[in-house]
Amino acid sequence: MSDILILHEDQLRRRLPLDRAAVDVVENAFARLAEGGVEMPPILSMHMPQVNGEVDVKTAYVSGLAGFAVKISPGFFDNPAKGLPSTSGLMVVLSVETGRVMAVLLDNGYLTDLRTAAAGAVAARHLSRPDATRAAIFGAGLQARMQLQALRLVRPISDAVIWARDAARAQALADQLTGDGLAVRAEPDPAAAAGFADIIVTTTPATRPILRAEWLRPGQHVTAMGSDQSGKNELHPDCLSRADLYVADRLSQTRLMGELRAALAAGAMPEGEYPELGQVIIGRHPGRTGLDQITIADLTGTGVQDTAIATHALAAFSHET
Amino acid sequence: MSDILILHEDQLRRRLPLDRAAVDVVENAFARLAEGGVEMPPILSMHMPQVNGEVDVKTAYVSGLAGFAVKISPGFFDNPAKGLPSTSGLMVVLSVETGRVMAVLLDNGYLTDLRTAAAGAVAARHLSRPDATRAAIFGAGLQARMQLQALRLVRPISDAVIWARDAARAQALADQLTGDGLAVRAEPDPAAAAGFADIIVTTTPATRPILRAEWLRPGQHVTAMGSDQSGKNELHPDCLSRADLYVADRLSQTRLMGELRAALAAGAMPEGEYPELGQVIIGRHPGRTGLDQITIADLTGTGVQDTAIATHALAAFSHET
Repeated sequence: MSDILILHEDQLRRRLPLDRAAVDVVENAFARLAEGGVEMPPILSMHMPQVNGEVDVKTAYVSGLAGFAVKISPGFFDNPAKGLPSTSGLMVVLSVETGRVMAVLLDNGYLTDLRTAAAGAVAARHLSRPDATRAAIFGAGLQARMQLQALRLVRPISDAVIWARDAARAQALADQLTGDGLAVRAEPDPAAAAGFADIIVTTTPATRPILRAEWLRPGQHVTAMGSDQSGKNELHPDCLSRADLYVADRLSQTRLMGELRAALAAGAMPEGEYPELGQVIIGRHPGRTGLDQITIADLTGTGVQDTAIATHALAAFSHET
Repeated sequence: MSDILILHEDQLRRRLPLDRAAVDVVENAFARLAEGGVEMPPILSMHMPQVNGEVDVKTAYVSGLAGFAVKISPGFFDNPAKGLPSTSGLMVVLSVETGRVMAVLLDNGYLTDLRTAAAGAVAARHLSRPDATRAAIFGAGLQARMQLQALRLVRPISDAVIWARDAARAQALADQLTGDGLAVRAEPDPAAAAGFADIIVTTTPATRPILRAEWLRPGQHVTAMGSDQSGKNELHPDCLSRADLYVADRLSQTRLMGELRAALAAGAMPEGEYPELGQVIIGRHPGRTGLDQITIADLTGTGVQDTAIATHALAAFSHET
């Protein structure tokens, strides 16, 4: 009746772990974004205050890939009270040759989690010190776990601390993640957590800064990936002005909803051009040029990551059949 | 593994014909749009000149319906040379309670054809003379056929003419549609075609006007439904200024890509507020108030129609299982 591939969450989770292959396809997508040959329109966003919900739709065309993804990401914030996660959704993959539907990936947001974690690894690969062994994760949710796992794919991380508003959740996550050559502990003092680390990753839904500039020290890299809406903010604006290098995933997005938005609003950063991660990847803009620099990656999530991870998924299953 | 309903084009075509039920659900959606309780963000549109393709994504939340649709509509204009239709796509229906995916409707654009034709019937029901028996269809494509069928659901149409640039296609369509109490003929002279009719429907991809104001006569209703992008234009701007009543499906859209866009650009219509179809339906704005008036409906296609037809489809199949 149809040659459309329908894949369910459990199939996708089994076949597509967070691994170097996932990191590489996301890195490649950022490189394409910098090279051109990419179309990525502004995000479609619909708010439904009547039901305390929202839906975002992202898409991107990346030349050289067989398909492009349209991702539908709902967030319904009364769900936890019903025993359901707030977020879910799916990706549709369409042929770049004909526009026909190639696949429907009923991932409930898993592929978004995967490509978001992979972007953290890409940022660390290009911006953190190669000898980084210590990580601090701010937040204790799913991305806290995945970002730490992602860092280990690209840097020799042996020690990590978790800070979260909810100390019990931080402790539970630390306990879970300890092992396999990694020591993880909860750290109740955010200044101490920040000071400990070579790489800091913020993964919270904070709307007021949780990381302060005076806690930073030379040599550190910070990836802020919690801010994907204009009301969110994890880094104090002074963090951005203190850094030697600020890198956006997509400048047009970070201006509107990333850490840059808050820093611009506070006057901590001047309006102007800032490098994007893809430009650093392809060498068009220098990345870290000294071991003592402070670098910041501001990740808001892009449609090219979705298209990259969706075509990666499609390729994995196409090889099988 | 999943309770997500996956429906294919042939299932949808069989179960959901163009009938009064389809017209009623689309009418209801327009009414809701006028009453409030609707969210309908701007269309997401991505152009891919590299592959001569584009994709549009529309969505709308309509209070009172169990789901909301996100529609993905690709147009790939090299497809006909490959023996494929230019357009295809699907709709995803998400729960308004949880945002979870309820259904994936792999309709290849059929539901769009259906809700577009239904909107033509809604416009005719509220704007044309109740005693309209003669229709003129400009265009010979799929919507030409469906718009004529839609008119017959709401008006006692007994005679119709088809005008199209390609006279052979007009003749072929006329031959196909004749029968079942309906006489249809091709009319090579567009002025004569227009003059013949009580209801004129334009269904072409024209980028320059095909209907002129001097061809109109008192009592006529015109529905223009071919223009869904800023480059398209079917009605000469003077048609709109000559009409006694101009009605948009959604004013924010017709200003940008409907017949109103061209009329505003030409200075034939002043900037300002114009009624929407839903306002006429609920009686907030008068519709036709005299048998000799000329009325125009400018239909660009709206997300509320998609949500209406998608939830209609879902209900039809839910009753079955």
